[in-house]
Amino acid sequence: MSHNTFGHLFRVTTWGESHGPALGCVVDGCPPGLRFKLEDIQAWLDKRKPGQSRFVTQRREDDLVKILSGVMLDEDGETMISTGTPISMLIENTDQRSKDYGEIARRYRPGHADYTYDVKYGIRDYRGGGRSSARETAARVAAGGIARLVVPGVTVRGALVQIGKHKINRAKWDWAQVDQNPFFSPDPQIVPVWEDYLDGIRKAGSSVGAVVEVVAEGVPAGLGAPIYGKLDQDIASLLMSINAVKGVEIGNGFAAAEMTGEENADEMRMGNDGNRIFLSNHAGGILGGISTGEPVIARFAIKPTSSILTERRSIDADGHNVDIRTKGRHDPCVGIRAVPIGEAMVACAIADHYLRDRGQTGRLK
Amino acid sequence: MSHNTFGHLFRVTTWGESHGPALGCVVDGCPPGLRFKLEDIQAWLDKRKPGQSRFVTQRREDDLVKILSGVMLDEDGETMISTGTPISMLIENTDQRSKDYGEIARRYRPGHADYTYDVKYGIRDYRGGGRSSARETAARVAAGGIARLVVPGVTVRGALVQIGKHKINRAKWDWAQVDQNPFFSPDPQIVPVWEDYLDGIRKAGSSVGAVVEVVAEGVPAGLGAPIYGKLDQDIASLLMSINAVKGVEIGNGFAAAEMTGEENADEMRMGNDGNRIFLSNHAGGILGGISTGEPVIARFAIKPTSSILTERRSIDADGHNVDIRTKGRHDPCVGIRAVPIGEAMVACAIADHYLRDRGQTGRLK
Amino acid sequence: MSHNTFGHLFRVTTWGESHGPALGCVVDGCPPGLRFKLEDIQAWLDKRKPGQSRFVTQRREDDLVKILSGVMLDEDGETMISTGTPISMLIENTDQRSKDYGEIARRYRPGHADYTYDVKYGIRDYRGGGRSSARETAARVAAGGIARLVVPGVTVRGALVQIGKHKINRAKWDWAQVDQNPFFSPDPQIVPVWEDYLDGIRKAGSSVGAVVEVVAEGVPAGLGAPIYGKLDQDIASLLMSINAVKGVEIGNGFAAAEMTGEENADEMRMGNDGNRIFLSNHAGGILGGISTGEPVIARFAIKPTSSILTERRSIDADGHNVDIRTKGRHDPCVGIRAVPIGEAMVACAIADHYLRDRGQTGRLK
Amino acid sequence: MSHNTFGHLFRVTTWGESHGPALGCVVDGCPPGLRFKLEDIQAWLDKRKPGQSRFVTQRREDDLVKILSGVMLDEDGETMISTGTPISMLIENTDQRSKDYGEIARRYRPGHADYTYDVKYGIRDYRGGGRSSARETAARVAAGGIARLVVPGVTVRGALVQIGKHKINRAKWDWAQVDQNPFFSPDPQIVPVWEDYLDGIRKAGSSVGAVVEVVAEGVPAGLGAPIYGKLDQDIASLLMSINAVKGVEIGNGFAAAEMTGEENADEMRMGNDGNRIFLSNHAGGILGGISTGEPVIARFAIKPTSSILTERRSIDADGHNVDIRTKGRHDPCVGIRAVPIGEAMVACAIADHYLRDRGQTGRLK
Repeated sequence: MSHNTFGHLFRVTTWGESHGPALGCVVDGCPPGLRFKLEDIQAWLDKRKPGQSRFVTQRREDDLVKILSGVMLDEDGETMISTGTPISMLIENTDQRSKDYGEIARRYRPGHADYTYDVKYGIRDYRGGGRSSARETAARVAAGGIARLVVPGVTVRGALVQIGKHKINRAKWDWAQVDQNPFFSPDPQIVPVWEDYLDGIRKAGSSVGAVVEVVAEGVPAGLGAPIYGKLDQDIASLLMSINAVKGVEIGNGFAAAEMTGEENADEMRMGNDGNRIFLSNHAGGILGGISTGEPVIARFAIKPTSSILTERRSIDADGHNVDIRTKGRHDPCVGIRAVPIGEAMVACAIADHYLRDRGQTGRLK
Repeated sequence: MSHNTFGHLFRVTTWGESHGPALGCVVDGCPPGLRFKLEDIQAWLDKRKPGQSRFVTQRREDDLVKILSGVMLDEDGETMISTGTPISMLIENTDQRSKDYGEIARRYRPGHADYTYDVKYGIRDYRGGGRSSARETAARVAAGGIARLVVPGVTVRGALVQIGKHKINRAKWDWAQVDQNPFFSPDPQIVPVWEDYLDGIRKAGSSVGAVVEVVAEGVPAGLGAPIYGKLDQDIASLLMSINAVKGVEIGNGFAAAEMTGEENADEMRMGNDGNRIFLSNHAGGILGGISTGEPVIARFAIKPTSSILTERRSIDADGHNVDIRTKGRHDPCVGIRAVPIGEAMVACAIADHYLRDRGQTGRLK
Repeated sequence: MSHNTFGHLFRVTTWGESHGPALGCVVDGCPPGLRFKLEDIQAWLDKRKPGQSRFVTQRREDDLVKILSGVMLDEDGETMISTGTPISMLIENTDQRSKDYGEIARRYRPGHADYTYDVKYGIRDYRGGGRSSARETAARVAAGGIARLVVPGVTVRGALVQIGKHKINRAKWDWAQVDQNPFFSPDPQIVPVWEDYLDGIRKAGSSVGAVVEVVAEGVPAGLGAPIYGKLDQDIASLLMSINAVKGVEIGNGFAAAEMTGEENADEMRMGNDGNRIFLSNHAGGILGGISTGEPVIARFAIKPTSSILTERRSIDADGHNVDIRTKGRHDPCVGIRAVPIGEAMVACAIADHYLRDRGQTGRLK
Repeated sequence: MSHNTFGHLFRVTTWGESHGPALGCVVDGCPPGLRFKLEDIQAWLDKRKPGQSRFVTQRREDDLVKILSGVMLDEDGETMISTGTPISMLIENTDQRSKDYGEIARRYRPGHADYTYDVKYGIRDYRGGGRSSARETAARVAAGGIARLVVPGVTVRGALVQIGKHKINRAKWDWAQVDQNPFFSPDPQIVPVWEDYLDGIRKAGSSVGAVVEVVAEGVPAGLGAPIYGKLDQDIASLLMSINAVKGVEIGNGFAAAEMTGEENADEMRMGNDGNRIFLSNHAGGILGGISTGEPVIARFAIKPTSSILTERRSIDADGHNVDIRTKGRHDPCVGIRAVPIGEAMVACAIADHYLRDRGQTGRLK
């Protein structure tokens, strides 16, 4: 299927299945001379890893990342320095319980990729969803950890802004809150509401969708390229590539459809310091596919995970009608853990466009 | 900027500015042996071309497409047969009125790409928006005309489903209506509402956003590839690459965020004829990035065009504050003409994935 | 067939057949702000165009290039300034004599691509070789004209170094001679030898092969990327993509197989001016895929054109044995006109790697 | 540097340095349903691995390959079945002797990539050549093992045809001999000559170049695509990407430059069985970039390894003149071990073009 790579100059290839021995990625195009410690990358994986609250899957994975190539150790024996060669990262799978999945080997779980993989390939690694498992996203987060180092001064942060019908109060947005609750919510007041709501969902063996917002600050103006290399296009592409994502917005997004030209366009003025100032950021930091220097803002909708305990009608590979309940350990709201994944995707897109603009080595200029 | 190409096996490269002598595209990867007439391609351009109602720009362009390569004429002297070599198509610009645009040569229209192009390139073809003009989309529509021929049995249709806050009644959806009104509305009852509303917008020199829905029927199951070659990912990427698009949805889209797993997943049953049947299509015809055989459904939001008659605050290239009104001939709702463009993008994505799956020549199998 | 594009950041797409209305290319990724006149590009096409001596095809084509996009005119009305958007160039075919080619519509000329195109596509534009005609190379030369502008200080020059068994005397190499004879020979003493030899070939209706050498001076050290983005790899790829090329060498090339490590490696010393000096250039300016700063040297072998007047055994599309003589206007030594084509390919490869290293816009650094 | 991937549908990404913990590759685009055992892949690595005779480096590496993803085990617990997802393969480095390399950390070995890596990246993994080490080719050979499974009926074999000035007698070519001597020579009579010659080279601490020929039989007619996706172009590109390769030929190669059209073109006749027959194969199985069905023949020249015991003039990273001898364990003729690497590259190119033509899944046709 040959499409497990993304990026044009900052290129990431991921590999691995849910229940294989390991998964990982190769990050190609990382500039030389970046300095970091293994724990800098591990921190992002820790944010994504399962089992951290009762609201996410209880699968236990340490998700410890190993770096196999592309770096040299500095004299402290700890700081890694990128050499410009591909960085191969590997994460072992340790908590596969294949017995949980045996009965769905030939049954198609509604809303899962079981049926389409079988139609396409005629063979499917049914264990834990195989390649279509959310575990693949661990490799994305590791790659995102490298991407964050590429563009000086960029900060990429995400937050959960909606679970089911319950949206945050945007007036209460406080980035400092995001790490203080199990939902990555920037609004502390919604937390108990979500807790109650999700406890109900979880106990019912059900699931629910969510919306994540990612904001990248410090993106230099001028990244992105018309016409088919737009920065927002590449962000949309990568966010849509995340499992279960069904919608992507930039800036005002679908709300822009309801607005007039007067309301939606961002006026400008010269600042006292000689800087160009945008008086608003409806565009989400991108005009004509190119960054304006304002924060880049993207949102994406995650559908409810299709693994639920309610019996559902389906068929099997032999063409029989079956009724199916998806047992096992699942996320009642897979959108929660999508926050660091969305951050990683946005960070990778920005790093790629930064290198397209400025080149890869920086030595020759 | 080197990113004026999209597609992996069905590859389209577009070129041209609003006020240059011509614009066009090269369609590479078209299989050999496709038979069509020039008018088959022209028909889609006619659907997109400006000046067809008072609700779109009054620029007059015939948008006659010429095919310069990649085909041989059949004995009837009219039917073209693709040879498998690149199809170069050219559309002349005939109604450039450069005088309309002179004063914005150094001023940045809010919401336009003027500022970002200047920041990035240090030079900008200000005439009619240059490369960022909606005229570039004529080349997309021509390419889409070829793409529609690639997959046997596929029908790709679009409709306008929302202007401003005014949405169609989906229960009234009738494809036969779409060509009977200047809005590509599938719901005839909304047409007078939109007419009144847009007349007001137009007379006020204002503009408004819209939402377009594209439906592809007859897409064979199995197109698309995990993980970064998902069919929905590529559709999202191409739709987001259209000027002024700020959001993309597949199937239930953002509404999925509000749904439970029971509501959102599509159950299956075996049909009497031995076919596999999906009992609903919340997924929009794609699971795990691969087509299910159900209609592929995508929606996208177009922001209001930023060219409005109201004076707006901005700056110029010299760092002065200016107030700017965008005169000239513009679309009060650019979303209307986005319908055939969206269709073209979806058709191209499907053609590309079809060829990835089945190969390009069909002779050797 | 979707592979009519080359380059990663400096990307060229060519299109067109021998006997269609026109051929051309789209050069994508050209940095903004390059200044040139149409005649700067035309000059390279003039060097390649047919009919300039009795030793090349007598087809008459002016090969006048038009630039349709990607530039703005400076105030002098003549100097073009690249804007960073795709540069579309078009060359009309004016001297197609289709009657010359009628009888080979269904016959496979030995050594030509007739048979393989038919096997692959089931349809073939037989007129003048269609897409496989050497006319396609006019578009390459136009693209090369742009590429030469990208890297400041680079000079790319080619010369013919062998016709049949007759090689130049390398000790006599004088670049100033290259434009003084119809063979692009750097050695004036070989010219009468080649004239006599080629007159014989031409009168016999035969053809003969040749070897071209291209030298790029002023290539900055550090261009190219291990492992699959080596500069020499990309040069080899592009030279091998030229019609009739059967071999490519870098630096010592095949002669290196006969040498020892002592003979072949290039020693270094510090110069008096603090520069690093290579004491020889066996490597042809590239080590480990990366330029050393020494001249980049590439050679390629062109087979004799297969269009000869001697009757040859072949078959036709219906599976009959036939005897075939290729009438029409052909090059007795197609290698002569390959000189500017080889230059163009090397220039494009260097431009592409330069942009990968240094980025595309140069505004943000 | 982002260019550690090759292939368009059959895509291989390699990673790893000579003295890191491991190296490996990700093979993306492998069709589903291929059946093989680990030993099928290991066999090719065994052919390439060091230390198998006194004529190659004495570094000891078992080069045991592990497959981490992309396959399921059949019921026999041994046969692997590809699933269509990326196949990640890993080979541990076990015999790194970093002490051997300490003194060249800041010195540039003539003919090596030391200088160019330092110029480009400003940092270089000097241990064993880092990324530019021949160890990277182990990953290529593993990928080639998968590639060989993709095209039914294809056999790709290589042989050494020249060491220094000593060429095989082509009339004596016997494939059965290739595995009977330490040189992969198809001509047994040259073996003692090469032994004597190389013993002298080895004892002198010198090195010498070589030429390898690769022949692929059973390649279906019709693979490859004009103009920039020629099969010979992609083979040339991949062969030139191998360390130390300085020249590539297809079919007659450079000898074609000395031939006439009568001598070089391959005539055709219909066979008694209705097959099309080429009466010769000067073209090396490729016309116009597309395979003819005849054996594909490629040759490449490998320069003498630059690691020699003779003292050579060079400089160091601080700009001082130094004299340098490269101690350590090296190949007196690195061309010997290039045989399986060349095979792997040709196999990968053919697999890629096969999939472009026929599609990737085979389920939907």
